[in-house]
Amino acid sequence: MRENLAESRSIARLLHPRTVAVVGASREPGSIGHEIFRRLLASEFTGSVYPVNAAATHVASVYAYRDLRDVPVEIDLVVVAVPAPRVAEVMRACAEKGVRGVIVVAAGFADGGDEGRARLADVIRIARDGGMRLIGPNAMGVINTVPTVRLHATFAVGDPPPGRVGLFTQSGALAGTFLTDASRRALGISTFVSIGDRSDVSCNDLLRYWRSDPRTGVVMLHLQSLGNPRRFARIARELSRHKPVVALKSGREAAHSDIGALFSSAGVIRVDTLSQLFDTTQLLACQPLPAGRRVGIVGTSSALAALAADACRTYGLDVPALSASTCAGLATLVGHRYATNPVDLGPLADPDRFDAALRAVAASGDVDAIITLVTPHAQVDRLASSVRAVAVESGLPLLASFLGQDGIPAQLAVRDGSGTPGPGSVPSYASPESAALALSRAADHAAWRARDQGSVPVLAGIDLDRARAEAERYPKDGAWLPDAAVATLLAGVGLRAWPSRRVGDQAEALAAAEAFGWPVALKIADERFRSRLDVGAVQLGVDDAAGLTQAWQAIRAAVGPGDMLVQPMAPAGVSTVVRLRQDPIVGPLLSLRLGGVVADLLVDPLSRTLPLTDRDAAELIQEIRGSVLLLGGSGAPAADTDALADLLHRVARLGEELPAIAEILLDPVLVGRRGVVLLHAGIRLLPPETEPRTLPRTLPRALAAGG
Amino acid sequence: MRENLAESRSIARLLHPRTVAVVGASREPGSIGHEIFRRLLASEFTGSVYPVNAAATHVASVYAYRDLRDVPVEIDLVVVAVPAPRVAEVMRACAEKGVRGVIVVAAGFADGGDEGRARLADVIRIARDGGMRLIGPNAMGVINTVPTVRLHATFAVGDPPPGRVGLFTQSGALAGTFLTDASRRALGISTFVSIGDRSDVSCNDLLRYWRSDPRTGVVMLHLQSLGNPRRFARIARELSRHKPVVALKSGREAAHSDIGALFSSAGVIRVDTLSQLFDTTQLLACQPLPAGRRVGIVGTSSALAALAADACRTYGLDVPALSASTCAGLATLVGHRYATNPVDLGPLADPDRFDAALRAVAASGDVDAIITLVTPHAQVDRLASSVRAVAVESGLPLLASFLGQDGIPAQLAVRDGSGTPGPGSVPSYASPESAALALSRAADHAAWRARDQGSVPVLAGIDLDRARAEAERYPKDGAWLPDAAVATLLAGVGLRAWPSRRVGDQAEALAAAEAFGWPVALKIADERFRSRLDVGAVQLGVDDAAGLTQAWQAIRAAVGPGDMLVQPMAPAGVSTVVRLRQDPIVGPLLSLRLGGVVADLLVDPLSRTLPLTDRDAAELIQEIRGSVLLLGGSGAPAADTDALADLLHRVARLGEELPAIAEILLDPVLVGRRGVVLLHAGIRLLPPETEPRTLPRTLPRALAAGG
Repeated sequence: MRENLAESRSIARLLHPRTVAVVGASREPGSIGHEIFRRLLASEFTGSVYPVNAAATHVASVYAYRDLRDVPVEIDLVVVAVPAPRVAEVMRACAEKGVRGVIVVAAGFADGGDEGRARLADVIRIARDGGMRLIGPNAMGVINTVPTVRLHATFAVGDPPPGRVGLFTQSGALAGTFLTDASRRALGISTFVSIGDRSDVSCNDLLRYWRSDPRTGVVMLHLQSLGNPRRFARIARELSRHKPVVALKSGREAAHSDIGALFSSAGVIRVDTLSQLFDTTQLLACQPLPAGRRVGIVGTSSALAALAADACRTYGLDVPALSASTCAGLATLVGHRYATNPVDLGPLADPDRFDAALRAVAASGDVDAIITLVTPHAQVDRLASSVRAVAVESGLPLLASFLGQDGIPAQLAVRDGSGTPGPGSVPSYASPESAALALSRAADHAAWRARDQGSVPVLAGIDLDRARAEAERYPKDGAWLPDAAVATLLAGVGLRAWPSRRVGDQAEALAAAEAFGWPVALKIADERFRSRLDVGAVQLGVDDAAGLTQAWQAIRAAVGPGDMLVQPMAPAGVSTVVRLRQDPIVGPLLSLRLGGVVADLLVDPLSRTLPLTDRDAAELIQEIRGSVLLLGGSGAPAADTDALADLLHRVARLGEELPAIAEILLDPVLVGRRGVVLLHAGIRLLPPETEPRTLPRTLPRALAAGG
Repeated sequence: MRENLAESRSIARLLHPRTVAVVGASREPGSIGHEIFRRLLASEFTGSVYPVNAAATHVASVYAYRDLRDVPVEIDLVVVAVPAPRVAEVMRACAEKGVRGVIVVAAGFADGGDEGRARLADVIRIARDGGMRLIGPNAMGVINTVPTVRLHATFAVGDPPPGRVGLFTQSGALAGTFLTDASRRALGISTFVSIGDRSDVSCNDLLRYWRSDPRTGVVMLHLQSLGNPRRFARIARELSRHKPVVALKSGREAAHSDIGALFSSAGVIRVDTLSQLFDTTQLLACQPLPAGRRVGIVGTSSALAALAADACRTYGLDVPALSASTCAGLATLVGHRYATNPVDLGPLADPDRFDAALRAVAASGDVDAIITLVTPHAQVDRLASSVRAVAVESGLPLLASFLGQDGIPAQLAVRDGSGTPGPGSVPSYASPESAALALSRAADHAAWRARDQGSVPVLAGIDLDRARAEAERYPKDGAWLPDAAVATLLAGVGLRAWPSRRVGDQAEALAAAEAFGWPVALKIADERFRSRLDVGAVQLGVDDAAGLTQAWQAIRAAVGPGDMLVQPMAPAGVSTVVRLRQDPIVGPLLSLRLGGVVADLLVDPLSRTLPLTDRDAAELIQEIRGSVLLLGGSGAPAADTDALADLLHRVARLGEELPAIAEILLDPVLVGRRGVVLLHAGIRLLPPETEPRTLPRTLPRALAAGG
């Protein structure tokens, strides 16, 4: 905790310097050092800036020092704008000078082969030894728009207005795009950090800084890698309770990992594209969160209104009919034809009627948010002033698709003291679809904030001593454990798999069946076909020895040679698959999905990070695709979801208590009307670095219902 | 055919007038009549324009006539810019004057209640009687940019350059957005038509016109309703073979109807949003179609390259590794670090190296298209000139995300004689994702064009006389036909459902089982649970009378009272659902999907319009979700897809020959290793206007595998 506080302070110091030196500030316009120095001057930095140049007496008309150590004042922040091979030498000078923060711009470190990585190690060591915080290498720089600082230390082109958004990116090249886009959209920035190689200062540091920075209201992240995902989850979850965090994660990691589970457990709003990142952030920066998913649409084009309504439904928002009283009120204001949601007043809409309609919908209590659609219009300024006024007065979030613009149009801006668009401004979207998508994400986030976080239930019958000892007996090599070991591990959390015996010939099969008692199920042991009732690899309800012979032959004819499994017939139940696995990025994940041949192929599981709360378990059960099979309704009986939730908690507990477990696969779990049956269970141990990414999806593995 | 030719000529005449009158050309700037007249003058229309105004002697400095009939020359096209109540009177004057084409701008017809609809009927009658083609009412107008005409008869703000795109929209309000966006993107237009209420001239008319218009290379449609879907399909299919057609369909119809099946059979490229409509069209207007799905990515930002590669994979494009020889060549040109796909040269990329890399990738033979990503750069013009040159020289389609711009940036334009961006220009996208999506659609379309269209196979054993007579015996009321009638209808196309007997008590069940021969399946008759092996509503492999009693009781305990079905046990097979239904917009559709409890809930069927070619049937089987179960592989046996294809053709034939059939539902069809089994079959007759839109999806209906 004390360490966190110190870290937080060191980041704040980095972003609030009183003195900045640019080492490598060249006289040549267009060079990075020159441009950064000029930007520092042009941004009206409230402290003082010092160019350092071994060869020039002045830079941009300012006296230049030959060496950092010659500068006659203490320096808080140094921008190192020299080529990679000279960086270490400058860093040593910084350390001597007692500098507290350094930004290294040059590439050629993490991306520079063996030589580069050696340089990087050098630079990191110098920073640590000298007690300096380091941004970069390969960083585009930092911006802090707070009026008491006004620091713009980047070589990017864009210059966004001051505002509420904290912006973090790893990529140097994209940093320019971010700043240009933010400027174009008039999206105000509190802080901007392009972190480059993430050798010291990380996203987590910035999240902590923004938590305590009163000027930052929304955080916008572009992530390429996550250094410490569990720490990220903890810090982001705390921050998200107070300030929305919107994140774009790109790159191969995202493809192989369940980043979605991490983000959703932390309340981080995940977006898929750069434009969605801006679309979502601009809404959260300007407008309140919606209290629900009901959307009113008011506009001047029936076609746009139809597209908006379609898009709302696609993204899980409602476009409700208005109440009778609202309709009646609207009808007197604007005529019967228009008294419905969407309210379409046509391209020649009278501004007074537009205003009245907008106010009536906002006051109706029938909607939680409004999307307005404004096409070119002779009196467009009057329409805009209605939209702006209703946004401020109604307390509902308003979005616009205003003349096809992206960002905050001048006519919809509510300006703060400094003249930049502030809270209350209405964001506009090039298309109604992008407005609907942004609103849907805001509604999801509002629901996340509003909901109870749940708690981890206390489980009876947990005794893990034998399980731990058993796990120690096996090599951590990724192989599936023998059935007896699986049984011992499961018993530690009070679970038991359905009886099963592997047999090599018909005599063994007969013995097993007689031991279990008739009827039995006979199936091929090969897990690729263990579920394939449809190709004849499973025979159910085998009643006697003659039936067993028939079944044996039928399976042989269907799928050829191989061991078989004999099991007592299980009671009917909805087939599900429960899996715990070590995600290489996110850590242990518990997932649930429906089972069966088709689901094995086509249905993605829903996952949650650990620890698993009762709320998490309930969401898994209610929100997996096809959950209606478990929940019942319309005459169909409900399955025993309490028993399933209990099972999920026990599996999660086993995964938490025995971190050597790489995977627990219960496939299928049959959820009956009373109780659950674990028809097949597998457990593997292995060191996380060798964990296979995912099981192949091309081959169905699981269950036959009832088999 | 002669009629088509006459229609086509009348449309051409409408778009190539020599004389235009504007009735209601007001003196007041901002009024619609005034603005249209001014735009006609400003567009340098090559013919002559005549204002008609009962109250003014001149309009915009041009002598005005009090009445259309006073104009001393023949008039080809009249723009009627008077309020709705006066339109009929002006139309009658047009008819007297022998005018051939009329555009009616006013709203207040189809959207004007009973009075409006009466007016509309009037106007349509006057146009028909007078032999006039009518655009509107509620039309924004037309544009034809051909240099011999230069007609701009709209009151919209945007003024796009001349070019290759034919643009059609129904919405007046969106028309302005279209023209503004096209201008902003520098997307050249050949023809623009805002059709409004579609009372006479329709989208189909324009498609036929564009087929023969040499200046139009791509067609861009915004549709709200389809007047004659089958005609649309026929005309669009023919046009799509020569010129790509991109369409955005919005509104409720789209939600309830399988417009997708109609579009895909016609080769129409469907998009979901306005910006995708432009994104896709600008690619097709400027660049050739890709020969395949392999994409090379060359750019100046690793983050953008990662986003582009992610997006390509998301949209089904490949980002292949380059061949060893290409890599070796690249390595000598740009260094080993960059010799991979994506080729990322960093934000400070040397323009010569960028050029060399781009040329090497284009010449490699390893890719079918290239996406270039250019971030802000000191020598951006040199990068742009490389992109432009490689696009022209390589013959591959090139796309760019160039400084985050949407449209055709000036630096990437290849200008034609008139100075406007023409073919060979490289379109740019605000984000790499939108570039990837547009390219993916172009690749889909190229595959559609390249493929064999297939033919409708000749089927043996078709004899429909009895089936027709049987269908005549039943009321067309939407009720499911009795099993005997279903059997007769299916027999007409050589199909037979699996035996099944509905029973009310155990004695009947026993009699049925003994008639069929043991073993049998017993299941509840209620179709909601007929498939629910998982809740115990189905009992398989019942071997004898004692087993039947047990099974009967188990089902009763599981789902309560109700009739049951007895069937002989069917051979194992992959469960599918085959359905033919009358879509209210698209007409008869044949669909296929996997069956089973989970698929019933979660898997959307794939549909084709009729007639069904062998190519269509093969695509249905290969492209449904989970088709691997049918196709086999990795040790799993393949199902008898030939038998399934034959079944699909027979069902299609029955639907075509007996148009009174509203629905044929075969649920499930078990596809075994040899042959198929129609476990349950239902047929309904009814008048199309009362056809229910879709069956509810909340309740699982179908099959238990093997049941």
